Amino acid sequence: MSVDKHFMDVFFNPDSVAVVGASRNRGTANYWLVANLLNLKYPGKVYPVNPNADEILGLKCYPSVRDIAEKVDLAAISVPANATPAVVRDCVAKGVKGAVIIAGGFSETGANGRGLQDEVKKLIKDAGIRCIGPNSLSPVNSANNFIIGFGQAEKLPRGRLSFIFQSGLYQPRLNYLLNELHINLSKLIDLGNKMDVNEVDALEYLSQDDSTGVICMHLESIAGDGRRFFKILKEITPKKPVIILKSGRTPAGAKAASSHTGAMIKSSDTVFETAFRQAGALRVQGLDEFFDLAKIFEYYPPMTGNRIAIATFSGGEGVITTDFCYLNGLQLAQPSEASVKVLRSISPPWGIPPNPFDTGVANQFNTTDVISTYVDTLADDPNVDCMAIQVSGPQTLVTVDSTDRLTKWAERYKAAVKKGKRVVVWVIDPRYTVDMTATLEAARIPVYPSAERAVRALGALYRYGAEREGER
Amino acid sequence: MSVDKHFMDVFFNPDSVAVVGASRNRGTANYWLVANLLNLKYPGKVYPVNPNADEILGLKCYPSVRDIAEKVDLAAISVPANATPAVVRDCVAKGVKGAVIIAGGFSETGANGRGLQDEVKKLIKDAGIRCIGPNSLSPVNSANNFIIGFGQAEKLPRGRLSFIFQSGLYQPRLNYLLNELHINLSKLIDLGNKMDVNEVDALEYLSQDDSTGVICMHLESIAGDGRRFFKILKEITPKKPVIILKSGRTPAGAKAASSHTGAMIKSSDTVFETAFRQAGALRVQGLDEFFDLAKIFEYYPPMTGNRIAIATFSGGEGVITTDFCYLNGLQLAQPSEASVKVLRSISPPWGIPPNPFDTGVANQFNTTDVISTYVDTLADDPNVDCMAIQVSGPQTLVTVDSTDRLTKWAERYKAAVKKGKRVVVWVIDPRYTVDMTATLEAARIPVYPSAERAVRALGALYRYGAEREGER
Repeated sequence: MSVDKHFMDVFFNPDSVAVVGASRNRGTANYWLVANLLNLKYPGKVYPVNPNADEILGLKCYPSVRDIAEKVDLAAISVPANATPAVVRDCVAKGVKGAVIIAGGFSETGANGRGLQDEVKKLIKDAGIRCIGPNSLSPVNSANNFIIGFGQAEKLPRGRLSFIFQSGLYQPRLNYLLNELHINLSKLIDLGNKMDVNEVDALEYLSQDDSTGVICMHLESIAGDGRRFFKILKEITPKKPVIILKSGRTPAGAKAASSHTGAMIKSSDTVFETAFRQAGALRVQGLDEFFDLAKIFEYYPPMTGNRIAIATFSGGEGVITTDFCYLNGLQLAQPSEASVKVLRSISPPWGIPPNPFDTGVANQFNTTDVISTYVDTLADDPNVDCMAIQVSGPQTLVTVDSTDRLTKWAERYKAAVKKGKRVVVWVIDPRYTVDMTATLEAARIPVYPSAERAVRALGALYRYGAEREGER
Repeated sequence: MSVDKHFMDVFFNPDSVAVVGASRNRGTANYWLVANLLNLKYPGKVYPVNPNADEILGLKCYPSVRDIAEKVDLAAISVPANATPAVVRDCVAKGVKGAVIIAGGFSETGANGRGLQDEVKKLIKDAGIRCIGPNSLSPVNSANNFIIGFGQAEKLPRGRLSFIFQSGLYQPRLNYLLNELHINLSKLIDLGNKMDVNEVDALEYLSQDDSTGVICMHLESIAGDGRRFFKILKEITPKKPVIILKSGRTPAGAKAASSHTGAMIKSSDTVFETAFRQAGALRVQGLDEFFDLAKIFEYYPPMTGNRIAIATFSGGEGVITTDFCYLNGLQLAQPSEASVKVLRSISPPWGIPPNPFDTGVANQFNTTDVISTYVDTLADDPNVDCMAIQVSGPQTLVTVDSTDRLTKWAERYKAAVKKGKRVVVWVIDPRYTVDMTATLEAARIPVYPSAERAVRALGALYRYGAEREGER
């Protein structure tokens, strides 16, 4: 089945969208529903719906979805829960194919909310309309700049990574994801209460989507057919890495999840753990790891070798990094004789080990650019699969102009990547992290805030690659 | 024994220091050895020693330590390894009490270096001089602004936390520690190769030091008497929390450690693990956790209650945070009826759970300052021991001026702390982290980059407090 035939496609590639609850007031979340579509130049038709406005952001505004004369593919509904059934009736009358219900206040809130949700569910089922939510803030598709979201989206850089979120936790992070984490996005969906569309649909759609190469999934529960979910998961993981953050994994977390999206977590976490592993998914424990892995899998193809070269500003950090390599399934590379000779030439007179290499000490005995020499040398070394390199802010021992040097380093790293090495960098001083990250990630070198996180990401890239190789 | 009678005291409170290898060249690391002492107004006498200069930074410069007419307590020696024995002979002739040897190139490098180190060791043993290093960059004492270090130290904020480092890994982080992590320091020592002074001496000294309330220790090996080390450790942990990062804990890491500081790691990591636990130390796995715990123990006294209130910008993040609370031994507080009533008044009409509390949703239904109300309410709640609160950058749903609001929040948090609550905050967008952290930590509210790290730190504060209570 081609993805444009999948029922979910209307949520990502609608020709026209009605935005119900659209607002002219820049201070409200609903303002951005329409503003983002216009600012980012979504090429489809946008129909603001609000009985109290004639025009919103230069577009004609309609009192109801029924009043729109043209065809409407999708309705994004952002009105309070108790006003939602009437809007859905309008959508049924209009004949929309899909609806996104943004408001909370449904099944997650108790008997009244459940009643409302059941009412809406019956309406859409009877009419054959597919629905995301309620309690959802999405979707996003970078291919056509289609975005339903609160808060200003500055840009949607296109890439091969798609996200499935259980809820809107990504929302305050959206610009961070796109502009600071420098992740290039394919699609994003927030499932919310999963009244109709659930994680099985979303996973199936993205598994068939050619523009999605990596899937990152945040889940609180499996609302759909669990057997089918794990079957699709197992089929797709050899082709596309799937990173999963399943929360509500502790008794306290499970209880919180049930108040959050009405999720009923029936299985113990051990069952999930085993099932994810058997299906070849990469399970992560928290949001740090989730986005760390998202980044490396978006930046790099998996790797099948695990021989790592480490360069740090101090020997102590080299030892700590080595421990983390071991714990993450990476082994210290033994650089070739040719490499060792070059590294010795930039070492102090008494010689220091080539791996982990102490660039802090080497810098004290060299006027040359130690890091460039290091990276260029190991880029050609057949004994090395990947490098983890510590860079630092301008207040360290490196006294040359750091912006120039960093730009130069970024080029050297990039050249090493072209030669098949995976290079990750960590930056230790938060004052310089944002700028240094921007420079390095513009060259598509992933940057992390610590050795342990850099190495953990690289370890996952290897674990995935090695497992896939084992399957061949 | 009082700390000023301990032999180690000469390293922290010398009346005079000779800096051998001092440099006038701002571009070199050795420049900062003298410059930091002058800039920070160390009140003792500073004698630069360098045969190629008459004056350094306005101070008379001596060709050798022997040429200094006045008494010299401590010599900080920063000359190459093979030039070190001659300098040590000068120190012996001069009658200095202590020496710090900064250069590497000794026992960590093989037979030649070991020979050099043995030569120096014999010299100091015969003369009764005590010695830190070689391969050490320290000490630091905030009480008298005494600092031996490369790179500019901007300031030394005084506090109750002391560090013991195996090596100079802290060096590129020094300004980060003091100015970004906002840790107030008591003393810092870098042990290096531990030719003479070792971790047992350092721990003993700090355990007796009244101005040290928390000890953070980075170790690669135990070079001294292990039995005595664990005896001192066990005696001090009930009075002062001791946080330990023991690296070289994997086979690969242990090998790297032996090339780094010549450390011989004889025991398996399991032995260390058990011994640290039995002694009541808090063992951490990496530098993120090391500094995260350093911060919370420096900011707050331990806590004996584990009832936590969580406020997040999204329900999904609340569930994830709840999982981490459970895994870190914290349990969700059940807010009092009075608190629930107030939280309901700032909730959407359908009601949301009080814990974890979704400030993102509450904000949509309120023009009041949700977070201030939240914090003020729970500050008075006897059912709550601590709070973990997510704050975010200005691009989120909160559209009021964020600097003003943040300053206001900091005051509310501070008021809650005065009422005995422990408050931690996490900030999700790196673009705003540095500034927001500065604002909040100026009010002594510790800030972390993620929920998992905020909660892990709080969990350690409770674990320590609960264990101490159990001992009473």
